[in-house]
Amino acid sequence: MSQVLPATISPELFAQRADAIADAARELAAAGWTPATSSNFSMRLDDDHAAITISGRDKGRLGRDDIMLIDMHGKAVGTSARPSAETELHTQIYRRWPEMNVVLHTHSRTQSVASRLFARDGVVTLAGWELQKAIAGQTTHDSELAIPVFPNTQHMPELVAQVDAWLDSGRPLHAYLINGHGIYTWGRDMAETRRHLEALEFLLGCEMDLRSRSV
Amino acid sequence: MSQVLPATISPELFAQRADAIADAARELAAAGWTPATSSNFSMRLDDDHAAITISGRDKGRLGRDDIMLIDMHGKAVGTSARPSAETELHTQIYRRWPEMNVVLHTHSRTQSVASRLFARDGVVTLAGWELQKAIAGQTTHDSELAIPVFPNTQHMPELVAQVDAWLDSGRPLHAYLINGHGIYTWGRDMAETRRHLEALEFLLGCEMDLRSRSV
Amino acid sequence: MSQVLPATISPELFAQRADAIADAARELAAAGWTPATSSNFSMRLDDDHAAITISGRDKGRLGRDDIMLIDMHGKAVGTSARPSAETELHTQIYRRWPEMNVVLHTHSRTQSVASRLFARDGVVTLAGWELQKAIAGQTTHDSELAIPVFPNTQHMPELVAQVDAWLDSGRPLHAYLINGHGIYTWGRDMAETRRHLEALEFLLGCEMDLRSRSV
Amino acid sequence: MSQVLPATISPELFAQRADAIADAARELAAAGWTPATSSNFSMRLDDDHAAITISGRDKGRLGRDDIMLIDMHGKAVGTSARPSAETELHTQIYRRWPEMNVVLHTHSRTQSVASRLFARDGVVTLAGWELQKAIAGQTTHDSELAIPVFPNTQHMPELVAQVDAWLDSGRPLHAYLINGHGIYTWGRDMAETRRHLEALEFLLGCEMDLRSRSV
Repeated sequence: MSQVLPATISPELFAQRADAIADAARELAAAGWTPATSSNFSMRLDDDHAAITISGRDKGRLGRDDIMLIDMHGKAVGTSARPSAETELHTQIYRRWPEMNVVLHTHSRTQSVASRLFARDGVVTLAGWELQKAIAGQTTHDSELAIPVFPNTQHMPELVAQVDAWLDSGRPLHAYLINGHGIYTWGRDMAETRRHLEALEFLLGCEMDLRSRSV
Repeated sequence: MSQVLPATISPELFAQRADAIADAARELAAAGWTPATSSNFSMRLDDDHAAITISGRDKGRLGRDDIMLIDMHGKAVGTSARPSAETELHTQIYRRWPEMNVVLHTHSRTQSVASRLFARDGVVTLAGWELQKAIAGQTTHDSELAIPVFPNTQHMPELVAQVDAWLDSGRPLHAYLINGHGIYTWGRDMAETRRHLEALEFLLGCEMDLRSRSV
Repeated sequence: MSQVLPATISPELFAQRADAIADAARELAAAGWTPATSSNFSMRLDDDHAAITISGRDKGRLGRDDIMLIDMHGKAVGTSARPSAETELHTQIYRRWPEMNVVLHTHSRTQSVASRLFARDGVVTLAGWELQKAIAGQTTHDSELAIPVFPNTQHMPELVAQVDAWLDSGRPLHAYLINGHGIYTWGRDMAETRRHLEALEFLLGCEMDLRSRSV
Repeated sequence: MSQVLPATISPELFAQRADAIADAARELAAAGWTPATSSNFSMRLDDDHAAITISGRDKGRLGRDDIMLIDMHGKAVGTSARPSAETELHTQIYRRWPEMNVVLHTHSRTQSVASRLFARDGVVTLAGWELQKAIAGQTTHDSELAIPVFPNTQHMPELVAQVDAWLDSGRPLHAYLINGHGIYTWGRDMAETRRHLEALEFLLGCEMDLRSRSV
C-alpha cells in the first residue's frame, strides 16, 4: 500500500519517524512483549498528524512500509491501509498533551497478568522502588506511582472515556493497563517513552514477585 | 537419506515447504520450545501428501535434508527415513480439514506443565484475555476458548480416537494438549499457525500465573 | 600452559575433543547453566585418558587451551595445569562404564534449587513426562526415572563413595544431583549427553513447577 | 563533553579503563540487569582517581564518551559532566580498601525483589550453596555468607554511614543490597568483580526460589 503525504509533511520526516517506530517495534518484539501480532506504536508528526503501525503486522519483522499516516481523530490519511483498532487511544494522548510525541502499547506476559491480578482494585500502586525515578517527574522512591487498570472492551470510545474520566479527576497519569490486555505509556521522545515502558515492565514484575513470594 | 518425489510433486514445491519447516523449527528451538530433539512439524503439499520432520533430529540444527514426504495415512513415501512417531496426529488434521495446511507440535516447559496441571479437568478454558483474538475466528476477549487436555499414550490410534471424539461432538477445536507432553495447533498457512502457537504459549503461561499468584 | 601428549594420543584427536568440549561449554554458558566459572566437562580419549576443563576458567570464553589431559585416576598428564576439583567424579564414570565417553556437569538455577528442595527425600522421581524418553533406554512416559540427590562435600572421595554405593545397589543411574550444587550426567557421545542434560534441566523445572503451582 | 586528564594519568590508561567499563555495562545491560538507565560502574585509576559512568546514560549503548574522571571524594575532575548520584558509594569502597579496583552496581529484578523481601531482616544469609565459593575468600559451601540490606535513601551520606557502621563492627562485607534498589559489589579486577556479581545474582535467585517453592 502506498502512502501519499500532505504537502505540509516532508517525506524525510515521515521516513525518519517510520524508521524509529519500526526499530523500536523490532526491539520490543525481540523482548517478547508483542506476541502474535499484538501491540501498536505511534509518533507525532505535527499538530494534526501521527505515524502509526498498520493493523495486524508481525512486530518482529516491521519495516517502513508497515507504518501509515493518521489524523488526530484516528482516520487514515493518504492511504487505504487500516490503522490499529486502538488508534483512538493514541490520538487521545496527542490531543490532550501537546508535549507528548510518542505512544507505545505492548502486551507482555507480565503486563497482561498484572492487569488481571490488579483489576479488582482498578489500580496498581507502586511505592518504595528506586526505579520509580525513571518515570518523568518522579524524583524519589518515597512517592507513590499509581497505574490505573481499566476494564477491557472492543468498543474504543468506552476506553477513551475511561481515560478522560481519570484525567478529568485531576490525578496524574503516566501509563495505564487495560484488563487482560496490556499497557499504554507515552513521553516527549522515543528514548523517554522506551525508558518509561522498560521501567513499568520492571516495576510490575517486581511488585507481583514481592506480593506472591515470601522468605 | 535421499527423498524420491512422485511425479505430481515438483522438487521446487518440496524444497520450498522443507525450507519453511526447517526455518520455523530453528526459530522455535531457539525459543526453547523443542527440548532434547522433541517436537515435530509438517506442511501439506497436496491432497495426498505432506512434508514432515524426520524422527529424532535436533530441531535447532534442522535443514532441508531433515524433512521427508508422507502420505495422508502417515506412511513414508519415496524414502527409507522414519517419520515422527506422532505423524498420524498430523495427517488426521489434514484429512479432516482440507483448508488446513500446517501443523506444529511443540513441547515448551509452559505447555508441559499446563498439560499436567489442567489434566484433572481435561480442558483449559481461557477467558478474558485480549490475545484470544489471535486465534482465527475469535473476535473478542469475551468469548471462551477451550483447549482440551488428552491423556498421554505411546499408542497413536488412541490419541487419534480422542481427537476424533472431541470433534465428532461438534465442539470447536483450535489446538489440544497431551498430558505431560506438549501442544498441537494448526492453520491455513505458516504465519497463521505460528501466530496460533505463539498466542497459545502466551495464554497458557498467563493463565497459570493468574491462578498461582495473588496480590 | 602447554600440553604434552603421550605417544598413543594424536594431536588431532586431542584437538578434536578439546574443541568439542569448548564448543559445548560456550553453548551451555550462553544458556546460563555455568555461572561464575562453575561447571566442568570432559571427554574420553582412550581407555586410560580423558580431556577435561582446567579449573576456574570462564566457561563462556573457553578455547582449546582451557582443556587438559588427565589419566583415569584424575591426575594431570603432560601439563602443570590443575584439573577441576571434581575430576574424580568424571573418571569414576569412565572407569565403571567403558561405553560412556562424555561427562557434563552444570550448575543452573533450576538444578541448584531442585537439589536443595529434593535433598530431604534424597531423590527426584520423575514420572508421567513424555520427555523422559529423551534419556537413553527410556521408552515410555509410564516408567519412573530416579535422580538421586547426594549430600555436598568438598571431600571428593565421599562423593565418589556415594555414587558407588548407589550403583552397587543395582539401581539404574542416568544422572545425579549434588545438594546445593548441580547435576552430573553422561552418555556415549556429545549429542546424547547434551540431550540428556537438556532433558534433565527441562524435567527438573517442570517437576518443580508442577509441585509449586496450582490451578 | 570532553574529558581533560591530569598529567599523572595517561590517555591510554583512561581509555583502557573506560572501554572495560563500557564493555561490562553493555554485557550486563544485555542480561537485563540495568533497566531504564539505572546502574553505575567504576574502576580505580590510581590512589586519587577513578573512572565512572556519567549519570543517566542507557547502559546498553555505552561507549568511551559515557565515562568520566572523579576524585576519591566523588567530585568530577577535568569535565563538566555529572557523575552518578551514587558516586560516593563507589569512592567509599576505594578509600577503605586499597586492593579493590572495580565497583559494580546493578539493578536486576531478582536483586530488587530480594532487597524488599529480606529488608525486614536487614540481611540475606546464604548457606549451603556451592556457588558461595565464587566469592573471594570463601572456600566451602559450609560457611555463611551475609549480604546486608540497607534502607534506601536519596541522601547518599546516610548510605555511606550505614556501610561504614557495618564495616566498623568488624563483620566481613563482600556486597550489599539497598532496599527496593539493587546491589553493590567489588573486587580486585573486572573478572573477579563480574564473577562476584554473577554469583550473587544466582545465589539471591536460588535463595528466593528455595524459600517460596515447596515440593
